[in-house]
Amino acid sequence: MTDIDVRQKVLAANAAAAATLRESFGRSGTLVVNLISSPGSGKTTLLEKTVAALKDTLRLGGLEGDIATERDAERLRKTGIPARQILTGGACHLDARQVDRALAEEGPRLQDLDILFIENVGNLICPTGYDLGEDFKVVLLSVTEGEDKPFKYPAIFSKAAVTVVTKTDLLPYVTFDLAAVKEQVATLAPEGRLVEVSATTGAGMDAWISLLTDALAKKRAAVYAAEGVS
Amino acid sequence: MTDIDVRQKVLAANAAAAATLRESFGRSGTLVVNLISSPGSGKTTLLEKTVAALKDTLRLGGLEGDIATERDAERLRKTGIPARQILTGGACHLDARQVDRALAEEGPRLQDLDILFIENVGNLICPTGYDLGEDFKVVLLSVTEGEDKPFKYPAIFSKAAVTVVTKTDLLPYVTFDLAAVKEQVATLAPEGRLVEVSATTGAGMDAWISLLTDALAKKRAAVYAAEGVS
Repeated sequence: MTDIDVRQKVLAANAAAAATLRESFGRSGTLVVNLISSPGSGKTTLLEKTVAALKDTLRLGGLEGDIATERDAERLRKTGIPARQILTGGACHLDARQVDRALAEEGPRLQDLDILFIENVGNLICPTGYDLGEDFKVVLLSVTEGEDKPFKYPAIFSKAAVTVVTKTDLLPYVTFDLAAVKEQVATLAPEGRLVEVSATTGAGMDAWISLLTDALAKKRAAVYAAEGVS
Repeated sequence: MTDIDVRQKVLAANAAAAATLRESFGRSGTLVVNLISSPGSGKTTLLEKTVAALKDTLRLGGLEGDIATERDAERLRKTGIPARQILTGGACHLDARQVDRALAEEGPRLQDLDILFIENVGNLICPTGYDLGEDFKVVLLSVTEGEDKPFKYPAIFSKAAVTVVTKTDLLPYVTFDLAAVKEQVATLAPEGRLVEVSATTGAGMDAWISLLTDALAKKRAAVYAAEGVS
């Protein structure tokens, strides 16, 4: 077996597990969002603020992928929602079988949710190729990282349905060409959405929250239609 | 061949190529620094300022690893030093054979240098296991990324001889516990050095530059001693 054969075998096994997950999420009508970014772009902070905005009206849960530490799952649990840490054993991305196993082990508390947030390992490259059964991928880019990133990491910016530009409160203190980012994202993902948020000030959070609730409503409508409920 | 066999084979081939590179860098007395961080932590900007400080007295060169775009090599060349882009074809790290090939293709301009900077692909995970024949690894962490990163990415913070905390000019505008970072780094790399810099204001750059010139002097002394020159 060559290196390429092994990689293809791994991806095929992942795709099969992801398809099973997607079916299951379809039955429960759970919207599943796979969040991907560099370390420190603000995934967990965005989720904390998102949970604060939605937890009174929706059943939310989280899976947190990391190489080490339980810190992110602890942060999410403090917001009052069920969350489970997945430690990848050194791997630079989550895979669908890890998600399946975590959901099985966590049991009812992470089932029948309205929205399941999956925070991937901090990495702009490896998570791109691993389908987790999600409805869509979200890529985050903080304004402190520089405007050259979409074209430097084209795979994830092409595959993500949503780009979230984070930490916009820091724009006065950094050099960041937002127009250039929008242009690159429009080239890589012509159908994609881009929202700009500051989790610190709350600016832009409304657009992000609406995007999630709209996606949930669409998914529910599709599930009801498939079940023959008008 | 299992996945693990394949990985071991790849790492063994890399180690052999790295050993050859290290011998060659030893003969030329070139200090080689392998810079690793998340995307957007400021590797290229730190190099631009480092080159400005050292290029009148030392022969410098750069290799720039990325998934896509020639942008970083162009930025380095603008500072007046030879630099070559290595595009990894999707891989999340440089390997020693890519470095060897790039140096051979670039020819004399990247040989017989005082310091060769290798800027790895933006990634805190994958580059950790790949020796490039360097004298030491440097990990960068910007103050906008949060203080939890060393324990979340323990492998690279253990292996790096130097941790550079970057963008310290942004400290007034972000929540970042520098003492906590120092404590984690001291645990993971008790022999390691930590410097704090702002490439924007120049704060801390002296300590970083001294660290490089001291390391170069030590390497030269070792080379001369091995050659029997007193």
